Amino acid sequence: MALHQAILAKNDRLAERNRGYFKAKGLLVLNVLSSPGSGKTAFIERTVADLGDRLRAGVIAGDLETDNDAKRLREHGIPTVQITTGNVCHLEAEMVARAMEKIPLDGLDVLVIENVGNLVCPASYDLGEDLRVVLLSVTEGEDKPLKYPVMFRTAQVVVVNKMDIAEAVGFDREAALRNIRRTSPEATILEVSAKTGDGMEMWYHYLEHAVRHKRSASTNRP
Amino acid sequence: MALHQAILAKNDRLAERNRGYFKAKGLLVLNVLSSPGSGKTAFIERTVADLGDRLRAGVIAGDLETDNDAKRLREHGIPTVQITTGNVCHLEAEMVARAMEKIPLDGLDVLVIENVGNLVCPASYDLGEDLRVVLLSVTEGEDKPLKYPVMFRTAQVVVVNKMDIAEAVGFDREAALRNIRRTSPEATILEVSAKTGDGMEMWYHYLEHAVRHKRSASTNRP
Repeated sequence: MALHQAILAKNDRLAERNRGYFKAKGLLVLNVLSSPGSGKTAFIERTVADLGDRLRAGVIAGDLETDNDAKRLREHGIPTVQITTGNVCHLEAEMVARAMEKIPLDGLDVLVIENVGNLVCPASYDLGEDLRVVLLSVTEGEDKPLKYPVMFRTAQVVVVNKMDIAEAVGFDREAALRNIRRTSPEATILEVSAKTGDGMEMWYHYLEHAVRHKRSASTNRP
Repeated sequence: MALHQAILAKNDRLAERNRGYFKAKGLLVLNVLSSPGSGKTAFIERTVADLGDRLRAGVIAGDLETDNDAKRLREHGIPTVQITTGNVCHLEAEMVARAMEKIPLDGLDVLVIENVGNLVCPASYDLGEDLRVVLLSVTEGEDKPLKYPVMFRTAQVVVVNKMDIAEAVGFDREAALRNIRRTSPEATILEVSAKTGDGMEMWYHYLEHAVRHKRSASTNRP
């Protein structure tokens, strides 16, 4: 436990260093989290592709083993760096610090960090992000927020994905929203389908507003 | 004690945020420390004036009450922000974060932070600097490093100032260097007179080298 605390303290310090670095670059940084299969990569792909020139985005994609996600993103011409964590079930601030040296950040407005597919381990690791975005899909069960309270409590945005199949899988929307509201009372809740694009425009408006807000707080931007 | 620890932990986090910010700006940052009367301001004034276009410097000057130091520096055309700490005997990372928003950092190579004149309180407060520069003058007694071991142990550079009057005040150079070496075995020791300029050229070379080193470590500089 003492060792775990020391690792977290070190991570927190490096996360603050990242936060300062991102602030100086005037970048809005997202830490995107979900279980495997919630459609994280599809959601990010659609976001960066749709944003196009409205907001220029780069991606740091974390995965246990493969770099398939990064390949898919690069096909869209998105600056992407892959972090393969091996047997580590979360990204750490230090991994992000190394990865961000490999992306030309100065041309970007948003940096999206796709965390490892997991709702437990990544919860305690600050990466220096501005916003934690937690995805859950309509196939996952409405009680997910109650099962992963730490993750949902620390999220600024909760995205309910795959709304296009909500009816087909018997998704209980009222119960899900009630549970999200209980664990994440302050969070912005978005209902989308990354596949069809439904609901995504509200997400883009949210991002544009957040980028403007970040910029105005960073007077020393180059 | 618990409160003091908590304040330090918060300061450490903010200092890391400053460190990341400075890194993104490609800035070399100095935290300059000494007792009152060691010639800190004269040393900084001479440094920024002599460097001129070799290295462009800005200054954050901390003082308990007055802004005389900042006025003197501004007369040289140096971008300067004054922090008056009131009854606080050291600068904190948060004060520096607020002050640096008021300087156009993008045109600068070096940011010099002149700490409050004190060799005890500032020792435990990381500001996010790259280098701690501790000054002592030949009038202060050769045992100063032994009296303020924390400050001298954490310094990367120790400057012995007012060498022009060393003989007149009976400065025991051998004893002083021995004591500095004992408390700061890794530090670079410089013997200078900020008044006559003797020894300052070596300091400028040191700074130029440190700036190049910092730049090469910051690939994402604008």
